[in-house]
Amino acid sequence: MTTPTVGVLYSGGKDSTLAALLLDRFYDVTLVTTHFGITDAWQHAQSAAAELPGSFQAIELDRSIAETAVEIMTDDGYPRNGIQHAHDEALEALADRDFDAIADGTRRDDRAPTVSRAAAQSIEDRYNVDYIAPLSGFGRSAVDDLVSQTLEVTVGPSEDIPRADYEAELRAIIRDEWSDVAITDIFPAHDQTVVTGLK
Amino acid sequence: MTTPTVGVLYSGGKDSTLAALLLDRFYDVTLVTTHFGITDAWQHAQSAAAELPGSFQAIELDRSIAETAVEIMTDDGYPRNGIQHAHDEALEALADRDFDAIADGTRRDDRAPTVSRAAAQSIEDRYNVDYIAPLSGFGRSAVDDLVSQTLEVTVGPSEDIPRADYEAELRAIIRDEWSDVAITDIFPAHDQTVVTGLK
Repeated sequence: MTTPTVGVLYSGGKDSTLAALLLDRFYDVTLVTTHFGITDAWQHAQSAAAELPGSFQAIELDRSIAETAVEIMTDDGYPRNGIQHAHDEALEALADRDFDAIADGTRRDDRAPTVSRAAAQSIEDRYNVDYIAPLSGFGRSAVDDLVSQTLEVTVGPSEDIPRADYEAELRAIIRDEWSDVAITDIFPAHDQTVVTGLK
Repeated sequence: MTTPTVGVLYSGGKDSTLAALLLDRFYDVTLVTTHFGITDAWQHAQSAAAELPGSFQAIELDRSIAETAVEIMTDDGYPRNGIQHAHDEALEALADRDFDAIADGTRRDDRAPTVSRAAAQSIEDRYNVDYIAPLSGFGRSAVDDLVSQTLEVTVGPSEDIPRADYEAELRAIIRDEWSDVAITDIFPAHDQTVVTGLK
């Protein structure tokens, strides 16, 4: 039987890396990074992907998705719903590619992005693809154990860590187009992790 | 760093086998079968476990748990809540052993047993253990792909398949003690799968 293919939505962070490692025993894995053509942050994901099994693809999404995400965030004053919008659109774009399954790094205890069972089944039905959330049955402490067993990582303030999640490009839009909005009002200071290799 | 230990609640079926395979890259896996001392069905799980990585343990639970599960089922006229009771008690017994994490084969689309996020966090807090549901982010079609990639299985009517889930012993109680209740009224005919080896 042919090995099925999975496209894993990939940021270079620990969660999407673990999602890929959980699947690569069963699937032909492609690490897929989406971006909005605003910065070259997606290349950080490509560098991290080079240390992992599987191939790499970048998908450029329409910049209007990022603009809408930023509008949602600046209206709300917090990032959750804007991040969710960007993630939903990225998953739709990934589902529209020719993979047998798509996956992401969402975890049990995440607040955003989340993919409900109903949203998962909707994607599966509309695109005739399996949606998999390999980390959705793992809590924070279990994820920490997976990381320490398998990954070399660098941790630091999110503005300094070379990742390719939505945050870097959304920050760039806010910086360029919303000069009256302080980025730290929307993205409170927090640490991020980037994967630098496998143990 | 020491590899953390996980006890996987194990029936010899495909779901609990896949749960173990998803974890064995990261954990020292023990396959744990619970039983009520009523039949020797747990030995079927031991046979299946012999084909897998990891060690095997059996835990005998108090027979009163099975009696209560059967009372619930006969009151309800369907098995869901009785199976849930048996599973909840099995997880508590497993959590009380000395593992860093415990896991089971519950899937995204299962109706019973299920472990809600609140129930997971309650077990984690009370026993200082991680609870992991490795298959909870996989739908039915994705699970079928995992099976076809990795497992040799036998499928057949549930009364003929030598598994070690709760059903065999609960059927035995109904047969012995509830002669006026037809087993097929509570357990409608359905197919089960037993794992016979790895591909």
